[in-house]
Amino acid sequence: MEYSIKVGGKRIRPILMLCTANIYKDNYKGLIPMACALEMIHTYSLIHDDLPCMDNDDLRRGKPTNHKVYGEAIAVLAGDGLLNEAMNVMFDCCLQGSKKELKACAMISKSAGVDGMIGGQVVDIISEGKEISNEQLSYMHKCKTGELIKSAVVSGAILAEASEQDIKILSLFGEKLGLAFQIKDDILDVIGNASLLGKNVNSDKNNSKTTFISKFGLEQCKEMCRSLTDECLQLLDKIHGNIENLRNITVFLLEREY
Amino acid sequence: MEYSIKVGGKRIRPILMLCTANIYKDNYKGLIPMACALEMIHTYSLIHDDLPCMDNDDLRRGKPTNHKVYGEAIAVLAGDGLLNEAMNVMFDCCLQGSKKELKACAMISKSAGVDGMIGGQVVDIISEGKEISNEQLSYMHKCKTGELIKSAVVSGAILAEASEQDIKILSLFGEKLGLAFQIKDDILDVIGNASLLGKNVNSDKNNSKTTFISKFGLEQCKEMCRSLTDECLQLLDKIHGNIENLRNITVFLLEREY
Repeated sequence: MEYSIKVGGKRIRPILMLCTANIYKDNYKGLIPMACALEMIHTYSLIHDDLPCMDNDDLRRGKPTNHKVYGEAIAVLAGDGLLNEAMNVMFDCCLQGSKKELKACAMISKSAGVDGMIGGQVVDIISEGKEISNEQLSYMHKCKTGELIKSAVVSGAILAEASEQDIKILSLFGEKLGLAFQIKDDILDVIGNASLLGKNVNSDKNNSKTTFISKFGLEQCKEMCRSLTDECLQLLDKIHGNIENLRNITVFLLEREY
Repeated sequence: MEYSIKVGGKRIRPILMLCTANIYKDNYKGLIPMACALEMIHTYSLIHDDLPCMDNDDLRRGKPTNHKVYGEAIAVLAGDGLLNEAMNVMFDCCLQGSKKELKACAMISKSAGVDGMIGGQVVDIISEGKEISNEQLSYMHKCKTGELIKSAVVSGAILAEASEQDIKILSLFGEKLGLAFQIKDDILDVIGNASLLGKNVNSDKNNSKTTFISKFGLEQCKEMCRSLTDECLQLLDKIHGNIENLRNITVFLLEREY
């Protein structure tokens, strides 16, 4: 568990939660345990996705994947342990908190589950080597990556007691950001630099996966990514408050090379 | 997820929760979702334990194990999905409930995690083929099986608003019952009937595992199991209320042949 958590990563989900909360609250340090729970959930999903029976990846964040270091059994259990520990942290936050903590945790938990991340991964696995429709591709990515990114943003807003109106805007922002993030991931899998990315490139093609690239081609994907980013920035402009950090992350996610 | 949940099983953990609550509350139907969450956590652990990289079992509850039917990738995800769905159900119960639901859920989540079930399974895996001390064996079984059984009992008591005094007694009861349960499991793995058990026997020996049997021998294990059951029944006698169902389950667990 410690190995995979400490091996690095962009920490996008916890950063999104904290920066969203920071629009409404100067002191967001109290939210750090919950933000860490998000990263634990993300990290568990990477450990399980990398397993030989899934994507069979040897390299992640520039280091050998968990099962390469500790073996498959411990990798499965490290993943289970991180998901469970994330829930422990969230229940503890709820015990010390109020209804808003519970709302945020229930949402995060749902976004990680069968109607979110796990559901998306199932579609990913059963679609390998098959042609899937645009709708199936969108559903897969919305669930697999989008839901947890969206819930990172929205939970930050809930925890910082944003207005219902702002939560609606940020929910749409999170949705579009999650989609842009996944398309960018697909782009980097084709044109990215393995040593910058810290993982092997062309893994989608090698695993016979349908991606945004295989559906729409590289140029159209770049255009979709830019246009989604613009929509994200326009949504942020509707929020009253200091959206500077969230704006910077949005642009960073478009321009990132890893 | 549905296949493994519906394939059967004794449903001991949810029954323990509901029967404990029933000492204090006539109508315990409102607790059924939480009881189901316990069974989902137990079932996920079985799916992952049966994986080829863990105990590599083909048969569970008289049916092919999850990965034998759906393949390893889906089995990993079905396990993840059940753990996550259990947490979704628990957060929903907390949203509709009060502090006592949160306390019960936080405890159940902890008992399933790295200081409970997952921790015990890790010790189990890394001890295969090694001689382990009595202390390590006790720690392993306390965590792997004991914690979740104990939390089934104690969560039932918390949810039904038992007194602090009764919760202490039931906590000790759950601890001893969990240990008796595991010793009985070890006994059945040696002298049990595979068709009644619905799983292969001698799997511990074949996986070179240290068990209570390999440490203390069959006869002493039977004696330990009887004496723990007696202690459990004596503890129940200290509770004011109708403990008939809990008493019957305790005796059933000692005498069971599956």
